[in-house]
Amino acid sequence: MDIATRVYNHKWKIDPIVRSLIDTDFYKLLMCQSVFRNKPDTDVTFSLINRSTHIPLADLIDEGELREQLDHVRSLSLSRGESTWLRGNTFYGKRQMFRPDFMEWFENLRLPPYHLERKGDQYELTFEGKWHEVMLWEIPALAILMELRSRAVLHDMRRFELQVLYAQAMTRVWSKIESLREIEGLGIADFGTRRRHSFMWQDWCVQAMLEGLGPKFTGTSNCLIAMRREVEAIGTNAHELPMVYSALAEGDAALARAPYEVLSDWHDEHEGNLRIILPDTYGTQGFLDSAPDWLAGWTGIRIDSGDPATGAETAIAWWKARGEDPTQKRVIFSDGLDVDKIKELHKQFARQVNVSFGWGTLLTNDFRGLVKDDGLAAFSLVCKAVTANGKPTVKLSDNPEKAMGPQSEIDRYKRVFGVGQQEAIKVVV
Amino acid sequence: MDIATRVYNHKWKIDPIVRSLIDTDFYKLLMCQSVFRNKPDTDVTFSLINRSTHIPLADLIDEGELREQLDHVRSLSLSRGESTWLRGNTFYGKRQMFRPDFMEWFENLRLPPYHLERKGDQYELTFEGKWHEVMLWEIPALAILMELRSRAVLHDMRRFELQVLYAQAMTRVWSKIESLREIEGLGIADFGTRRRHSFMWQDWCVQAMLEGLGPKFTGTSNCLIAMRREVEAIGTNAHELPMVYSALAEGDAALARAPYEVLSDWHDEHEGNLRIILPDTYGTQGFLDSAPDWLAGWTGIRIDSGDPATGAETAIAWWKARGEDPTQKRVIFSDGLDVDKIKELHKQFARQVNVSFGWGTLLTNDFRGLVKDDGLAAFSLVCKAVTANGKPTVKLSDNPEKAMGPQSEIDRYKRVFGVGQQEAIKVVV
Repeated sequence: MDIATRVYNHKWKIDPIVRSLIDTDFYKLLMCQSVFRNKPDTDVTFSLINRSTHIPLADLIDEGELREQLDHVRSLSLSRGESTWLRGNTFYGKRQMFRPDFMEWFENLRLPPYHLERKGDQYELTFEGKWHEVMLWEIPALAILMELRSRAVLHDMRRFELQVLYAQAMTRVWSKIESLREIEGLGIADFGTRRRHSFMWQDWCVQAMLEGLGPKFTGTSNCLIAMRREVEAIGTNAHELPMVYSALAEGDAALARAPYEVLSDWHDEHEGNLRIILPDTYGTQGFLDSAPDWLAGWTGIRIDSGDPATGAETAIAWWKARGEDPTQKRVIFSDGLDVDKIKELHKQFARQVNVSFGWGTLLTNDFRGLVKDDGLAAFSLVCKAVTANGKPTVKLSDNPEKAMGPQSEIDRYKRVFGVGQQEAIKVVV
Repeated sequence: MDIATRVYNHKWKIDPIVRSLIDTDFYKLLMCQSVFRNKPDTDVTFSLINRSTHIPLADLIDEGELREQLDHVRSLSLSRGESTWLRGNTFYGKRQMFRPDFMEWFENLRLPPYHLERKGDQYELTFEGKWHEVMLWEIPALAILMELRSRAVLHDMRRFELQVLYAQAMTRVWSKIESLREIEGLGIADFGTRRRHSFMWQDWCVQAMLEGLGPKFTGTSNCLIAMRREVEAIGTNAHELPMVYSALAEGDAALARAPYEVLSDWHDEHEGNLRIILPDTYGTQGFLDSAPDWLAGWTGIRIDSGDPATGAETAIAWWKARGEDPTQKRVIFSDGLDVDKIKELHKQFARQVNVSFGWGTLLTNDFRGLVKDDGLAAFSLVCKAVTANGKPTVKLSDNPEKAMGPQSEIDRYKRVFGVGQQEAIKVVV
């Protein structure tokens, strides 16, 4: 390295983890635009939740360093090139996916303040403000915590150890990709931004997918990487939409309608491959049973909790019951995938529906077994909307292990949405 | 990389493979000094022999590039730092291993000319001249051919493919080392210069051994790497000594004595851990049966062909028969080793003798299965003395697959040394 580069690097007070407002998931921007249009006056609180309580985040990560990283994100604004890409690029075959009024607002956005406090061996990290602003904290906050934890573990390793570590991790990712390459008709995207080992590592994994899978690699959820590597930005919508809409609903009848109202708004804004149902927020079976017929006309469904094969079968049966042809529909699996599960699901469903995969943490953060005490194993960290206009949000999902919200509200939601007994599945990542 | 570095690199007409006269095996220098003293007037021919005739070296390697590399070696002379290291360093606990008259000669040495000619899909590469000069061609010639072949295969690979390739190779070496680490009392050295994948790769493998094995890694045969990495330079003597001494012998009686005369000269020059018998040149059993008693007093034996366990058992039985205590002796295994064989031999012999290992090609060049058509798999290339003062040399070894020399001379040697039926073992590397 030349002296100028070294000197330049030394000028950074910190080594920023998130260096761009579009180093985030594409669906966050789609949802943000939707919220910006439909619910601009909603106040929300997002909160960090470490579901892996055995990982003492506050012991591993220095509070000062965490603040520096979060402060750095608050200093970011959309660059001219990023704005040009968002305004000019084709997403899902559509130009001007982002409307001029949204882009103008986004170009002037700085992320709102955060609240950080150590509680025992964990951090309380919350974000309060307008929904469309606060929601953009989710991905950078998670990515920062994950990478600071990686850095803490890597800090004491020597140069040679690091070289071997990354050689092993590369070999592992590559052997997964070689294994996936054999699947005929595979379509798979990177969904691994939020719980990635590091930015550079995610970027490498995307390159590896691109090199190894060619057209079977359909893109990445990460906008910055999609822009730089010239691949498709992938994503549709997430649980936060029905969670906040539901929290805002007044009374049980309105609550029962809320998850469909979300999709009605989405229906007005998007078409084709962006019309993907995420049915599990309050139980897939009940959601589909009560769904209006126009929803059966949507392009597909994303299975993000519970047993994925059961979820897909439920969707297929539902489409058939509504007179739809499942072979014309898309099923996107995105929950805790790894190679064996991907192969199994593809084999089981590829003839019945169009199958695709959103591969997350076990793509961008599979360092299991590579360091002492498994110190780099990924863990289950989320950052969720916990209140909307002062009312608590609830998520049930198809796995009781992923449920969140006050118990009384959980009980009420279960009643309203007719959720019975659920099978508990261990949440790894 | 900075501009100055780029410009500097562009000044090289070629990227030299061998950049130092001590980028060679330590035993070459020990033998060179011995020959310089004892047989300074011997004329020899060394010749390249590709035992893996399915590898079409002349199709893979451009003749012009090969000449450039060989010419570059002829431009080398001992640097001041290298000379200082050879003169001042302690080898096998001894200072001034290299005598002043030898060093003075070495400091002024340039390697003699080579003869290169394409013959079908192979190269005829020979070196003629004084033994102590020509012999120093062996290792650089082999290393150049091996690395040019690697480069030919790597040439068409893209940056990402190369990154994955080396990640996989590193992961493989490291997992071997982790496996070896478990062996209690292990002592192992790098003997992989001649058939290494590349210089940089051998250097990395040595680092990996150093990092992963600590004191179980006893050193490297490569003088340049030993100097730079500050590890022990390892090696004693090789088949070329008895081969040339035997070729020079007049009549059968003198021939029968020749292999012991070599060791008599060596006995005068060296002691302790350098007194290692290499017994297999004309059959281990016969050599030991006819050996003088003073040879049984030597420190150990190196097993370099045939079934290694049989070789070690033969040596142990011989020591016992001569009233020596095998537990005070050293057995060095150095033929075609890999992890499983090392573990097996260590387990079998560690209680009976002091065991050590010289790990060669499958340490520094195990790229099997990593590229298309296995194009980087190591192969069996040697560079041997084929004549001495105009007479042909012969090697029998304990494996008829490794025998070399004119058939009539092989027959004569077999008769003189009483070699009967031998078990053929496939030569991989």
